[in-house]
Amino acid sequence: MLTRIDHVGIACRDLTATIAFYESAFGLTVASIEVNEAQGVKEAMLHVADGPAGSSYVQLLEPLGPDTPVGKFLDRRGEGVHHIGYGVTNITAALAAVGATGVRLIDERPRHGSMGASIAFLHPSSMGGVLTELVQAPPT
Amino acid sequence: MLTRIDHVGIACRDLTATIAFYESAFGLTVASIEVNEAQGVKEAMLHVADGPAGSSYVQLLEPLGPDTPVGKFLDRRGEGVHHIGYGVTNITAALAAVGATGVRLIDERPRHGSMGASIAFLHPSSMGGVLTELVQAPPT
Repeated sequence: MLTRIDHVGIACRDLTATIAFYESAFGLTVASIEVNEAQGVKEAMLHVADGPAGSSYVQLLEPLGPDTPVGKFLDRRGEGVHHIGYGVTNITAALAAVGATGVRLIDERPRHGSMGASIAFLHPSSMGGVLTELVQAPPT
Repeated sequence: MLTRIDHVGIACRDLTATIAFYESAFGLTVASIEVNEAQGVKEAMLHVADGPAGSSYVQLLEPLGPDTPVGKFLDRRGEGVHHIGYGVTNITAALAAVGATGVRLIDERPRHGSMGASIAFLHPSSMGGVLTELVQAPPT
């Protein structure tokens, strides 16, 4: 079902500084910067590699305020890995299949993610503590 | 410098049960199970995808005891993402380059990792809270 590790989502307090750090330490380059008001974040996708099923990214997430999901995560856990995103070919089919195995879905239906992708989150309580995202890349 | 997201390292309390979960929920398959006494873990590599620079895995980590790094992590944080591993072509050169940018190295020299890889960890205190691993795959 999974086609790749699409991205590692990392919560940070200062997006600009953290982008500069990943550019400097690893030579990563910014593929996109977007504000997602619905999720309460400003986020950057830093390109890591291309593969047969799509690209992989480091996704940096700065909350738009303290009362957002990522803002609360930073208060509770500090900076660090927030979630893991895996690529799928058909997110509607993948959600149905994962849900049928008893995994608790945060999103019953796909919604808009970074760079035009369709995404859905699975609840960490049924994923061994890992907030997990399924990602269907947009048509190319 | 980074060639891929090599793996997501996930700390769990019950390796057998967590392997079974990832097999059931996502159809992942076990590529290897190893005991690493030096790191105090029993670990499984679950294959996610192949790419031009190597494969990607979910790495599940069960501590060999409470006084191991992963055992202490579980006490402190509970189950969840423990570290992120990125592929590099030449780990000695990558460590030198990353160290030269001011990143604090846990391992000054590479050591043995899963499946014959050479690995080294970078300290989360200088990686925005993310315990980060560099991975050079063994010669094929």
